[in-house]
Amino acid sequence: MATYGIGVDLGGTNYRAASIDKDGKLLDKIAGPTNSAAGREAILGAIVSAIVALRDRRDADELAGIGVALPGFIDMQKGLILASPNVPPFSGFHARDALRERLGAPVILENDANAAALGEKWMGAGRDVDDLLLLTLGTGIGGGIICDGRVLHGFMGMAAELGHVTVDPTGNPCACGNRGCLEKHASATAISAMARFLNLGENLTSQQVCELAAAGNQAARRVFELMGSALGIGLANYVQIFNFPLYLLSGGVLPAWEFFAPAMFRELNERSLTYRSTQTRVEKATLGSDAGLFGAACLPFQSQRASA
Amino acid sequence: MATYGIGVDLGGTNYRAASIDKDGKLLDKIAGPTNSAAGREAILGAIVSAIVALRDRRDADELAGIGVALPGFIDMQKGLILASPNVPPFSGFHARDALRERLGAPVILENDANAAALGEKWMGAGRDVDDLLLLTLGTGIGGGIICDGRVLHGFMGMAAELGHVTVDPTGNPCACGNRGCLEKHASATAISAMARFLNLGENLTSQQVCELAAAGNQAARRVFELMGSALGIGLANYVQIFNFPLYLLSGGVLPAWEFFAPAMFRELNERSLTYRSTQTRVEKATLGSDAGLFGAACLPFQSQRASA
Repeated sequence: MATYGIGVDLGGTNYRAASIDKDGKLLDKIAGPTNSAAGREAILGAIVSAIVALRDRRDADELAGIGVALPGFIDMQKGLILASPNVPPFSGFHARDALRERLGAPVILENDANAAALGEKWMGAGRDVDDLLLLTLGTGIGGGIICDGRVLHGFMGMAAELGHVTVDPTGNPCACGNRGCLEKHASATAISAMARFLNLGENLTSQQVCELAAAGNQAARRVFELMGSALGIGLANYVQIFNFPLYLLSGGVLPAWEFFAPAMFRELNERSLTYRSTQTRVEKATLGSDAGLFGAACLPFQSQRASA
Repeated sequence: MATYGIGVDLGGTNYRAASIDKDGKLLDKIAGPTNSAAGREAILGAIVSAIVALRDRRDADELAGIGVALPGFIDMQKGLILASPNVPPFSGFHARDALRERLGAPVILENDANAAALGEKWMGAGRDVDDLLLLTLGTGIGGGIICDGRVLHGFMGMAAELGHVTVDPTGNPCACGNRGCLEKHASATAISAMARFLNLGENLTSQQVCELAAAGNQAARRVFELMGSALGIGLANYVQIFNFPLYLLSGGVLPAWEFFAPAMFRELNERSLTYRSTQTRVEKATLGSDAGLFGAACLPFQSQRASA
């Protein structure tokens, strides 16, 4: 009987792997550098070693399978990583079959933002719901949509590009080709850019802008008002579209909650009739950087239920 | 064995009822006035008579059930119509149980825009896909989302408010409380308002503006460019969020396709990386005003499969 899964969260800088039991209890954890410069084989070897080490410490017969979360676009049918800008050697790599061959166990790939959303649903702030949307406010803005307990992928695995929706049609130009993407108005990068524009400093991080806001700096507070307002416009649209019970925020900008949340909730109230007339919750995610790891480990259990 | 379903499309002015077989073939049809002024009991009586007449012409044992599509918000669990501005006597009415009691057959209620999306999926332009989004461009803009073959309802049945998403944060004020709703920039009403603003005429219908555009009137063409641009911004967001293979347009504005589509596709191309890099289709719906009727008749078959 399958009692545990192994999840891997492969990032551009580090990877983490963990065995987690079917009730979501973290049993064991290994981490290391991704070392993209060393190439595909080196990364693959490191991940495989970590998974084997975790499996060797338990009963291999009880392993449900292995989930791997990583940044990039994935062809779910083929188990092919179409593009992974943060882990370049894995772009164009049939990673699922390569891992399955070396490990002799079922492997499922998932986009890291989707995995984080699934992790929050399984063991985080979304435990009590079947439908939620997660926005990760970091250098960029990523996201994942959980619909009826499962990741919404879209027909090419490109759903939930939640940072690249228009919140201001004449807004800031984005590398994706659009203008006024949510990401250009509400990410950590956008906060730094707004601080520069308001003469707060040339190279402030969003954390430093947050510290200035905490010290009472009015321009820094204005930055978070603008950021919160853009975020509220985006969230109001998501609430109108999905009518989910829960929308979660995570990522490096989260500590600035007290400075951006008032403007965010004001926009939500003004712009979304559904928000005003239902008990819709917009809350902080709770698993932090472990969300993707939990989501990855959850994947083999979901797969078992689906085929049962 | 269930071989046919009965669908009812209850509108503010007229109702239509049809028996449709499990393969989507329309067998029989009855229509009449809704007559809201006569009150709840009169409307209910008319619908029940139509359904009984349709059933009496076939084998009652082969009836899968009855689906009723109507405008308004529905509590799906309770079978309660929370609000129906176009059929006021049905607001606050437990219509499902009332119909079930009188008919002795399973009854399912559905919002009319959701039913139209389901109808297009079953027998219309979406027959070859499991996921689609339908936008109905009429006096207002409504919509429905079909995800994995089924209607996306949201936790309070308020999902797919696709006309009330922000496409311009400083745009036209909307009765829903927002500014810059898609509906205020791309519906038939918005087209009339833009025609007035551009001095084309005080009370032109969207059809008359379309006729002017067809005759070469530049201001009328400008109206449809603005409308198509707003529609493209909204659609680009939907493509980024869902990555569905198909987005359908229907409603009274559809005959102006040749005048608004170029601006719509231009915005889609510029604003959605997913649109540019996948074979995403944006097309005309094909069932016209019958979409809701087909969707309603499809509901009992879906319900049977779900409980089988």
